Amino acid sequence: MKVLIVHAHPEPKSFSSALKDLAVNELQKAGHEIVLSDLYAMKFNPVASSADFGKRVDPDYCVYALEQRNGVSSSTISADIQQELDKLLQCDLLVLNFPLFWFSTPAILKGWIDRVLVSGRVYGGKRFYDRGGLRGKRVLVSITLGGQQHMFAKNGVHGPLDDMLKHLLRGTLAYTGLAVLPPFVAWHVPYVTHDDRVAMLASWREHILSLNEQIPLSFPSLNDFDDLLHPLRDVE
Amino acid sequence: MKVLIVHAHPEPKSFSSALKDLAVNELQKAGHEIVLSDLYAMKFNPVASSADFGKRVDPDYCVYALEQRNGVSSSTISADIQQELDKLLQCDLLVLNFPLFWFSTPAILKGWIDRVLVSGRVYGGKRFYDRGGLRGKRVLVSITLGGQQHMFAKNGVHGPLDDMLKHLLRGTLAYTGLAVLPPFVAWHVPYVTHDDRVAMLASWREHILSLNEQIPLSFPSLNDFDDLLHPLRDVE
Repeated sequence: MKVLIVHAHPEPKSFSSALKDLAVNELQKAGHEIVLSDLYAMKFNPVASSADFGKRVDPDYCVYALEQRNGVSSSTISADIQQELDKLLQCDLLVLNFPLFWFSTPAILKGWIDRVLVSGRVYGGKRFYDRGGLRGKRVLVSITLGGQQHMFAKNGVHGPLDDMLKHLLRGTLAYTGLAVLPPFVAWHVPYVTHDDRVAMLASWREHILSLNEQIPLSFPSLNDFDDLLHPLRDVE
Repeated sequence: MKVLIVHAHPEPKSFSSALKDLAVNELQKAGHEIVLSDLYAMKFNPVASSADFGKRVDPDYCVYALEQRNGVSSSTISADIQQELDKLLQCDLLVLNFPLFWFSTPAILKGWIDRVLVSGRVYGGKRFYDRGGLRGKRVLVSITLGGQQHMFAKNGVHGPLDDMLKHLLRGTLAYTGLAVLPPFVAWHVPYVTHDDRVAMLASWREHILSLNEQIPLSFPSLNDFDDLLHPLRDVE
């Protein structure tokens, strides 16, 4: 299996970075081929702009998605995007490993999403959800956060974490056709004991070594919608 | 009223930029004081990192939120953050105006959120939701997107837009104590006619001139939770 790990934490000695290191080591030991994009170490540019395109469809007015399609098909898209896109298209499993910043990814990883998940190859027109360009691949999200698990219970102060992450799990990852594995969440990280962290590393190890037994989350199928994306029947 | 408009679109001639211009003009005409942060024009740096702090609490290990608290209280936080934070703390109304990228903000705006909504002043400890550091101020989100409104119906292919935006409306804006006004959404922008766009501009004008009649969205109150943030009673 080819695995692309995209890691985004500003502190190389963080617990999130330890999760990344453990994933690299364990997956390598299990015989998989690992490619790592450590976005902070790479000083990845997260800002989607017209500078991403060597040759513009319209030099006077930038429709970003349109320029992405042209940039990829004419191989004139920025080299840093092309490189990440190649890694993505070659992988069987994508791992996104990051600390939760404002119930989402750090901006540097949001920018990887904005720039690398290109229109044309990854999605476009009716190619989304179970018809998305990345179908056949899987994704695993691994998050560290300060909050405690009970704060994300159904009647907790924030409600379920999966609801807070709907934009990412459904609106981004499932949208591209990826099979979204159950996320791994390390709770309350800055406040727990050393022993708790050791236990979380052990459960992360177990999580990544049992990926094949895990059932991906459920998302809509375009088969349930007509050509104008009206539902074919009422959904509860 | 002092209004801070944070705008984030890569194309200065975009419809999103027209919404921004209209807001600036109409609010100025109505006698309000406008401050504009046009993040692309400013080449705003969206990457939260240890470089944001002139003087570190711990030079060997960066806990970003902790360094934010220290950086603000000792006035050693990066000048670009301090400048945006001052604008934010002085405003009565914050407007976030952007195109929807992957059911969220463009990375450059996510980075404004990551870096400017500092721990200590904006949130921290039990200071969130109705006890957040920005309570007393209001926020208006204004979004352009390619999708059509029926795709975001309750039984639509993506489900309600507010659910996709939960991380932003609740997890970010309401979290800081801001009163979140009903978002303005311009649907299907790249595909509609000139007349449709003129109509959308007119309805945006109406939206911003009737802010005082609008009822903010509802979010949890910490009064309904105990000191450990367990709910005081069952919530449906």
